[in-house]
Amino acid sequence: MYTDFKLYTVNCTLTKGVFIMRMYEIIEKKRDGFELSFEEIEFFIKGYCGGTIPDYQASALLMAIFLRGMNERETSDLTMIMAASGDMIDLSAISGIKVDKHSTGGVGDKTTLIVGPIVSACGIPVAKMSGRGLGHTGGTIDKLESIPGFRTAISIDEFISNIKKIGIAIAGQTGNLAPADKKIYALRDVTATVNNISLIASSIMSKKLASGADRIVLDVKTGSGAFMKTVEDSTALAQAMVRIGHQTGRKTLAVITDMDIPLGNAIGNSLEVIEAVETLKGKGPVDLEEVCIELASRMLQLGEQGTYEECKTKAGQTLKDGSALGKLEQMIDQQGGNIKVINDNTLFGQAAHSFDFTAVRSGYISHINTDSLGIASMVLGAGRETKESVIDYTAGIILNRKTGMRVERGDVIARLYTNRPERVSEALDILEQAFLIGNDEPAKRPLILGIVEN
Amino acid sequence: MYTDFKLYTVNCTLTKGVFIMRMYEIIEKKRDGFELSFEEIEFFIKGYCGGTIPDYQASALLMAIFLRGMNERETSDLTMIMAASGDMIDLSAISGIKVDKHSTGGVGDKTTLIVGPIVSACGIPVAKMSGRGLGHTGGTIDKLESIPGFRTAISIDEFISNIKKIGIAIAGQTGNLAPADKKIYALRDVTATVNNISLIASSIMSKKLASGADRIVLDVKTGSGAFMKTVEDSTALAQAMVRIGHQTGRKTLAVITDMDIPLGNAIGNSLEVIEAVETLKGKGPVDLEEVCIELASRMLQLGEQGTYEECKTKAGQTLKDGSALGKLEQMIDQQGGNIKVINDNTLFGQAAHSFDFTAVRSGYISHINTDSLGIASMVLGAGRETKESVIDYTAGIILNRKTGMRVERGDVIARLYTNRPERVSEALDILEQAFLIGNDEPAKRPLILGIVEN
Repeated sequence: MYTDFKLYTVNCTLTKGVFIMRMYEIIEKKRDGFELSFEEIEFFIKGYCGGTIPDYQASALLMAIFLRGMNERETSDLTMIMAASGDMIDLSAISGIKVDKHSTGGVGDKTTLIVGPIVSACGIPVAKMSGRGLGHTGGTIDKLESIPGFRTAISIDEFISNIKKIGIAIAGQTGNLAPADKKIYALRDVTATVNNISLIASSIMSKKLASGADRIVLDVKTGSGAFMKTVEDSTALAQAMVRIGHQTGRKTLAVITDMDIPLGNAIGNSLEVIEAVETLKGKGPVDLEEVCIELASRMLQLGEQGTYEECKTKAGQTLKDGSALGKLEQMIDQQGGNIKVINDNTLFGQAAHSFDFTAVRSGYISHINTDSLGIASMVLGAGRETKESVIDYTAGIILNRKTGMRVERGDVIARLYTNRPERVSEALDILEQAFLIGNDEPAKRPLILGIVEN
Repeated sequence: MYTDFKLYTVNCTLTKGVFIMRMYEIIEKKRDGFELSFEEIEFFIKGYCGGTIPDYQASALLMAIFLRGMNERETSDLTMIMAASGDMIDLSAISGIKVDKHSTGGVGDKTTLIVGPIVSACGIPVAKMSGRGLGHTGGTIDKLESIPGFRTAISIDEFISNIKKIGIAIAGQTGNLAPADKKIYALRDVTATVNNISLIASSIMSKKLASGADRIVLDVKTGSGAFMKTVEDSTALAQAMVRIGHQTGRKTLAVITDMDIPLGNAIGNSLEVIEAVETLKGKGPVDLEEVCIELASRMLQLGEQGTYEECKTKAGQTLKDGSALGKLEQMIDQQGGNIKVINDNTLFGQAAHSFDFTAVRSGYISHINTDSLGIASMVLGAGRETKESVIDYTAGIILNRKTGMRVERGDVIARLYTNRPERVSEALDILEQAFLIGNDEPAKRPLILGIVEN
């Protein structure tokens, strides 16, 4: 049984086919820590997606990549090959520099709904393909769909035509955007090979490359509510993605932002849209506005709208003069939504039940396990527990207090909205565990933790 | 998409089932370098063999094991769990200490055909389950089947009854001996996870444990014709297997023997049986006899037949007094074979063609790539190129010269026997590459390179 490899080669080539054999050699090479060539990575991706390379070989290679790593060149190659596996959206019909924005995701992250209109109001075309929420709560597309009538499933033609007409469109990703990434992600998801910087970076960037933007701003979130829990990990991921952008000719800049505390006060789909509208009116939470202005300024900067400081002033101006809010209104109208929601929250519908979560002791909120707030929101109906779950747009949490604030025993820390009263005690239990109340005022954590650019 | 693991846990448990999820955690644990518990290894093996754990998760775990390793305890546990996955043969009906012998395989390794009869002639019951050749040339079972009429597919009952009656039986492995190992080996074979000491050791030892012997002698071959090319690797494998034996209560001793040079002069099925018979007559090649006497002595030693020196004398005596040859004759007779082959080689049949391989220059044979001799024999018909190939028992190679010997240009180094004259030039080309003829007499390599015992 244990004979040498040469025999194996003979048997394998003859009986198991050239694909399995060549893939065997690729696995072996990475297993032993060697660099894979462009051709080898392409052979893997094309073969796996084409069905000639089986799952079990792909997962063995992914584990070898996870443990042995990929260098800069291999990571860029993987990204480009995955991007080219499906449609490559052509935005050349839209004039101007197209700047895309991507967030690695967090709890209460409604920045796209604010940043998009700001940037568009400044004259930079916003062509944004967004995903549904695979996290605890809905994604941008789910949030937009909480607006009565809003259509996110628009064709590429309508998408481009809307941008040409009003300067902004946010649509769901088409089924054929980087399908190789989709297939490989699904396999990583069940084989414990998700959490690797090269694989994460190439997965994110492959979709960005396929989406057709010229330049990319990345919002890499860090902390208890983010995928990356530490600044070090976030920075490493940001660097990997910026390098891919550089290698593939798409200027990319990453902003590392805090997600140790929920962004803004609203968690849940229509609750977040309402908060975004308030922010566009200049009446939003300070932290949310600060992050949105930062991201918008960086997008404008990449779009060559002036220096960073100039771009920041321009971005701020759109909140004051109502032009950003006007852009959101135009987009809602263009994509079939009811624009009256902007001035009438009740049009979103209301959850049948609300409950208070109160402080069990007096003191300062010293830490929030932000992920748990996402899970509690999901339990209330705001997210998908299974792929088949239907999101309740009205469900969610509004925070009255966040990390660093003083509370007295019995103060309402948060209000819960739901149509599932039977699951409220479960959500309250999760919140109980999530909040840490101490005696001392904790040190303030900056919102913008760093910038990574090439 | 990139959210944290907790979410994953929630989704996965609900949508993908408990098996996939628990296996996910096992993969993750080993991926991060932690030790797996008995229960976790058992969950994996039972789930994979039972079909509840898919190939792609199994291969991801195997790659993690390959790169992170398993400790002594994990390796023993894996071995025992795989051994228990099928039939556990009960040899208790046979009185005396049952000593099994296993070789890691090499070119021209016909030791079982000699060692079995020697040991049996000394009064130790020999209950040997053997495999077919997955290497270049046939395995022990293929070799025995080259004897006209010999039956290797005998029932467990017949196997045990034969041993009780004449003290020896050599049979093919039943289909249900360590089936988990079989399934896992097949997956390792196509995912570049074969060559790992823990996995190799547990694979070999699981079959030994299931075969029911009380004690085990391992012949770990090393060199250009063996799976393990270096003494260091062979020693590591031997140590791993001896430790498993210790941990599972089966006293195990390993002999590291040379396989840099073919053992004996015959390669090919009936050619090797003929050489084995000659050796039992006391007229075999010196190297082959030395290794066989060593292995037999160690088996007798484990069988408590005296000191090593006493056992060696006993073993040697059986060649002189013909008792070992008598045992082979009894076994052939008992298993339906024609005992006349012992004194009449022509009963094996003859290959239709023979060709000489001659020295292209004068000098000393300084090295033989022994694996290549196996491949050349396979090309001539002695082994299986594919799983479906039918072995030609008469095909093979007889060596006139081996490493260390002087040759003059034109001397016959080897004679090739085949019924495929059209493939002789291919075989000759392989041999041309395999022999290195230098000017100086090379240093002599010892045959017995070491003993590993607990």
